[in-house]
Amino acid sequence: MKEYPQSKINRIKRGANRGTYDVEKINTILDAGFLCYVGYIYDGKPITIPMAYSRREDKIYIHGSTANRMLLSILESEETSITVMHLDGLVLARSGLHHSVNYRSATLFGSLKKVEKDHDKTKILKWIVDQMMPNQWDTLRPMYQKELDRTLVVEFTIVTASAKVRDIGVLDEPEDYDLPIWAGIIPIKQVAKYPIADKGKPENMQIPKHVLDYYDENK
Amino acid sequence: MKEYPQSKINRIKRGANRGTYDVEKINTILDAGFLCYVGYIYDGKPITIPMAYSRREDKIYIHGSTANRMLLSILESEETSITVMHLDGLVLARSGLHHSVNYRSATLFGSLKKVEKDHDKTKILKWIVDQMMPNQWDTLRPMYQKELDRTLVVEFTIVTASAKVRDIGVLDEPEDYDLPIWAGIIPIKQVAKYPIADKGKPENMQIPKHVLDYYDENK
Repeated sequence: MKEYPQSKINRIKRGANRGTYDVEKINTILDAGFLCYVGYIYDGKPITIPMAYSRREDKIYIHGSTANRMLLSILESEETSITVMHLDGLVLARSGLHHSVNYRSATLFGSLKKVEKDHDKTKILKWIVDQMMPNQWDTLRPMYQKELDRTLVVEFTIVTASAKVRDIGVLDEPEDYDLPIWAGIIPIKQVAKYPIADKGKPENMQIPKHVLDYYDENK
Repeated sequence: MKEYPQSKINRIKRGANRGTYDVEKINTILDAGFLCYVGYIYDGKPITIPMAYSRREDKIYIHGSTANRMLLSILESEETSITVMHLDGLVLARSGLHHSVNYRSATLFGSLKKVEKDHDKTKILKWIVDQMMPNQWDTLRPMYQKELDRTLVVEFTIVTASAKVRDIGVLDEPEDYDLPIWAGIIPIKQVAKYPIADKGKPENMQIPKHVLDYYDENK
């Protein structure tokens, strides 16, 4: 079992029993999503922006326009963290204090660099699109050189990380279990609805299997 | 129409046509969720943590244990921002560059203070629980004084803010519309599944109407 190193920045204090530094477990959380929250410091203030990402090994890739002020600030700032969270349920307890949510979250600390080579940029943009919609990239019109030129691709190397998972039932005070109060879990899921074709040709085309699969698997 | 002031920190540069500073529109985005991403600076590094919240007027309330190192750091740091995002759909275009998501997001900048009075703390904790599950608080066992004592309630006053919304269809390059590539939107929704009763009394109780309503309205 490979673990990320623990330090002041990523050590879990509260609910340490729910915490992990396990690389595989953290990767599983990262691979279950495609939207991350990137934290950076701009003009002395912490800002968080949601961005699409893809993971390969210990790298997280994000991208944006070369005219994107925020992405440039992120790249310039030496310090960045990335947070990914999946909400899995509402925990309704018998007292206010024990209300909670079930979730899987990971926080990553690392270093950033710009990806320079066109070949690498193209490969990574495919990963990012395919992390959102598996098998999508190969159905698309290839990128123009001018499109690649105005796209900034950033590689974040995970130096250390931690994750927290809550996936259990209600935990109430011992004396509260006899109260006539309903308690339980409401599972929460992010689901895909039926695809809506764009005007023109797509209206008369069969929805591709990989797109339908995405809809089906989330039912 | 009341708007938040624009400054270097909240001005929207990219996709300014999708941006707004409108107080009501921003409040609507905030009221549609209960999980926010709080950004703060710890040891010189930007960290983002997901937290439950509630909004009243221009205040966002968050809470945690008095032993919560992160919440104490947030309170001590003069600089904090809060981000809320709702993912509404995947935008599958004919080229990689025009892939996007439909979403509603708000970013808030403001100042923090600790809520001191027990009466205020209790009222705010009710708001936070009820923002997650409407009408829940009044069904619960009242808080003990010792529970209130070890709960830190923090008030964030919104000084300025901005929001971005994308809620339109695919936008492709003019020359790409004739390509035989499927394009369209996959609507995404966060749904509640059927409630799972806790062991003991709840198994033999009717699920309360407000809990069933939450399930129903998300179908």
